[in-house]
Amino acid sequence: MTLTGEFFIGQERLASREQFRGIEAETGRPLEPPFSLAGAEHVSRACELAEAAARDYSMRPLSERAAFLEMIAANIEELGDELLERAHLETGLPPARLTGERGRTVGQLRLFATEVRDGGWLGLRVDPAIPDRQPLPRSDLRSRNEPLGPVAVFGASNFPLAFSVAGGDTASALAAGCPVVVKGHPAHPGTSELVAGAIARAVAASGLPEGVFSLLNAVSNDVGAALVADSRIRAVGFTGSRGGGLALMKIAAARPVPIPVYAEMSAINPVLLMPAALEEKAEALGAAYVASLTMGAGQFCTNPGLVLALESPALDRFLAAAAQAVSEAPAATMLTPTIHAAFEKGVGQLLDNACVVPLARGREGQGPHQGQAALFLASADDFLADDHVSQEVFGASSVLVRCAGEAALARVIARLEGQLTATVHFTVADEPLVARLLPQLAEKAGRLIANGWPTGVEVCHAMVHGGPFPATSDGRSTSVGTRAIERFLRPVCYQDFPASLLPDLLRPGAQRGLPHRLDGRFLAE
Amino acid sequence: MTLTGEFFIGQERLASREQFRGIEAETGRPLEPPFSLAGAEHVSRACELAEAAARDYSMRPLSERAAFLEMIAANIEELGDELLERAHLETGLPPARLTGERGRTVGQLRLFATEVRDGGWLGLRVDPAIPDRQPLPRSDLRSRNEPLGPVAVFGASNFPLAFSVAGGDTASALAAGCPVVVKGHPAHPGTSELVAGAIARAVAASGLPEGVFSLLNAVSNDVGAALVADSRIRAVGFTGSRGGGLALMKIAAARPVPIPVYAEMSAINPVLLMPAALEEKAEALGAAYVASLTMGAGQFCTNPGLVLALESPALDRFLAAAAQAVSEAPAATMLTPTIHAAFEKGVGQLLDNACVVPLARGREGQGPHQGQAALFLASADDFLADDHVSQEVFGASSVLVRCAGEAALARVIARLEGQLTATVHFTVADEPLVARLLPQLAEKAGRLIANGWPTGVEVCHAMVHGGPFPATSDGRSTSVGTRAIERFLRPVCYQDFPASLLPDLLRPGAQRGLPHRLDGRFLAE
Repeated sequence: MTLTGEFFIGQERLASREQFRGIEAETGRPLEPPFSLAGAEHVSRACELAEAAARDYSMRPLSERAAFLEMIAANIEELGDELLERAHLETGLPPARLTGERGRTVGQLRLFATEVRDGGWLGLRVDPAIPDRQPLPRSDLRSRNEPLGPVAVFGASNFPLAFSVAGGDTASALAAGCPVVVKGHPAHPGTSELVAGAIARAVAASGLPEGVFSLLNAVSNDVGAALVADSRIRAVGFTGSRGGGLALMKIAAARPVPIPVYAEMSAINPVLLMPAALEEKAEALGAAYVASLTMGAGQFCTNPGLVLALESPALDRFLAAAAQAVSEAPAATMLTPTIHAAFEKGVGQLLDNACVVPLARGREGQGPHQGQAALFLASADDFLADDHVSQEVFGASSVLVRCAGEAALARVIARLEGQLTATVHFTVADEPLVARLLPQLAEKAGRLIANGWPTGVEVCHAMVHGGPFPATSDGRSTSVGTRAIERFLRPVCYQDFPASLLPDLLRPGAQRGLPHRLDGRFLAE
Repeated sequence: MTLTGEFFIGQERLASREQFRGIEAETGRPLEPPFSLAGAEHVSRACELAEAAARDYSMRPLSERAAFLEMIAANIEELGDELLERAHLETGLPPARLTGERGRTVGQLRLFATEVRDGGWLGLRVDPAIPDRQPLPRSDLRSRNEPLGPVAVFGASNFPLAFSVAGGDTASALAAGCPVVVKGHPAHPGTSELVAGAIARAVAASGLPEGVFSLLNAVSNDVGAALVADSRIRAVGFTGSRGGGLALMKIAAARPVPIPVYAEMSAINPVLLMPAALEEKAEALGAAYVASLTMGAGQFCTNPGLVLALESPALDRFLAAAAQAVSEAPAATMLTPTIHAAFEKGVGQLLDNACVVPLARGREGQGPHQGQAALFLASADDFLADDHVSQEVFGASSVLVRCAGEAALARVIARLEGQLTATVHFTVADEPLVARLLPQLAEKAGRLIANGWPTGVEVCHAMVHGGPFPATSDGRSTSVGTRAIERFLRPVCYQDFPASLLPDLLRPGAQRGLPHRLDGRFLAE
């Protein structure tokens, strides 16, 4: 398989005169081949095809839709080492991590295939007619969830496989029955092309209308903006910066017909260290914290950017251990020069900020744009004095807030913005304090973690990778796990239609074997 | 029980120097007593109390929350005829209609009580730990839906009971576990005060924190705007005009922390008449159509404002019958002078519009601001030539579009905005044509109706009273039926917590008896 540098509009591969190149993350050198950039006319054409495909795709039997998702997974696996090698070149992420990420990517495609067949997401509800009800008869009412229509997906830089072209947003939108137009992330265009090929082949082999999938390349924001503004797009999935997410929300809200934006944007993922836990294992916690902080150069949405604890001698031991671990942490190649520059700028602003004290810095890097971990200390009052201290610095930077007592700790929590996660380390002796804090934390975050670390997100049924604004644009949703499919659905009710005109799964008896509600009663199958 | 003209902030009843009066709909005369207007400080105080109540209320056992809803219903029934008489005075709606509406109001409160106990809305999911999984163990993950927090509800003028102070939005928000701050509609302040008293008494008798419910009176838009802008409000429920809904969406999107707005705004609810059905019963359809059109002076969100049909002699018979029925339709008192003026203006604009031909007008009224039904005719081309023709005129005004063939009919449907409902009248002979049109209609509306009329909304499990923008601001939701509760929830996941710290219903075994997913498997109880 050889990269062509073309983008995908349905089954067509297109080249254009405007081009750009991927960058080898470790060296900063441009990579072959040059990639063609999509323009406004390509956005329009991809959306036109997506709209033309939407109804046909939405009406395919669930078994067909599930098999399509499974074929995408198999096609990605078939790309073999070429995919991992290209992704490593473009992102600097280590091969072991990328192997794991590929496993997650194909795993979530297969999980959604199972979910599509299981059918709970259909939300089937049947309220049979009651012709003799007084004073008025009841009609026969049946409802199910239908796909919203074409979805725009923005590839994320930090998960070139699991949250990019065939990542969680694409998998859940396709599972819901929505065509997808991906705006590829310019940090990994070769990886994107390879994965797009895997999807496009699955579309063709499954006999689906070609508009079910397109991939557009862009380096400027114009193409993404045009995509979100296009009247044929009905929802947006995005993982990236707060600025980027807010810009898309604004475009979507200003459309003649506004659409939902699911943007996963910004979090500092507070980690609370309870006194007895600190007493018992301050040093081990310090080391584990820095391992979570520096994993993947800190480039995770769930990176622990904030630690909260009550002052104590044990906390000082934790601080010493964490500072030691940070000072020994090797520099790590960041995803792109831009991300590295933003990280340096963010760390620099903290270094200049009188509200925080620098505690430790990681080892200097050898190559270009390697990120050096950074650890800061603040009092609760200083942390609360300047909102800049609680802003996410994307990368391995974290602030530890030392609180004089429970009241100060609660005050800090109360002031936090919405978060993806909140973590608590505790022992049995800490439980009364944790019980007091937990309801407050539950109002701030989508996922609460006991005695673990926020990095590492299980793709399963109970997962919530979401959280109140600005962690995401829409705290009612998750972008990881099977509930992610709910983002791309709307309910439609059919009143008094004969079986011959009802959608297959709403016909009398057709709900058998699927979770549904019959006259309000829950039936598992 | 005597009206005081005060508004409610928790258990406190407040008077202010700024006052207004309700209007007797049939005469236009001001009613006693004067009602106090809330100001910005009252908005703030109500929101403060609501926020203070939110956590406590959200953590009450489901049985307690359900009993509270049932007590509100009983208290409303206890208001007896005084409520119906005051509502009739203020709205002009006939006593029989108001009796039915009261039944719906208490019925939906009781339905939500049952729903709260049934617990499907909790979305309980448990993925147990897999400690020996390779290469990495799986954590114990459990998630459930939690209430969003305080909800602002805007009373609607056209359902003084079922979509006002204790209406569908309030019932579903309270069922979800959210405190409610209602902005009462100035068209029925006395009705609002009576119902607010019923709720406030239930709050006190249930031992709930007083901030669970407040009612603010306002005549200007400022109070509503301040309410939606208040940082403590987490979601908005609104039924009203397109302009009003769009304004609230704008305020909500511009907040530092944007919040969801569920606005039900604007629909013309197309009714399609298929050829064989027309052939069989043109006259009966014409009469039934006008009955639906003129019911409640046409003041329904689901009023049939548009009829689409293929030209034929049978259609001409339908037209003649409908025109005849309209011309015999008595004028009917509209809800407010403002609504009547807007209706007259809308009808006047259609009378002046060269794209439509006036077919018939209802009888002239005897009293002030009585609405006279209005029926217009247009060709498909003329209908498509001017977007004004497809704008909702709130009241008994409807446009019939005569299409030259199926292609013209499909073109008209394609151009329609999002709708609450779409109705089709057909016989077996029409089914092939209906089958071709139905998928297109399903993309445009939240509810499809066979051989019925859109007015009349069943409060049940399968109901969808929603639809793509601008029918509602958020086509993923319904404001009627048990699914309405979903609007006010967000998922929260707990990872690896001991039973002692988990919310009650997430503890091991606590899901028994409730619908849930265990490791992905659906269990009805």
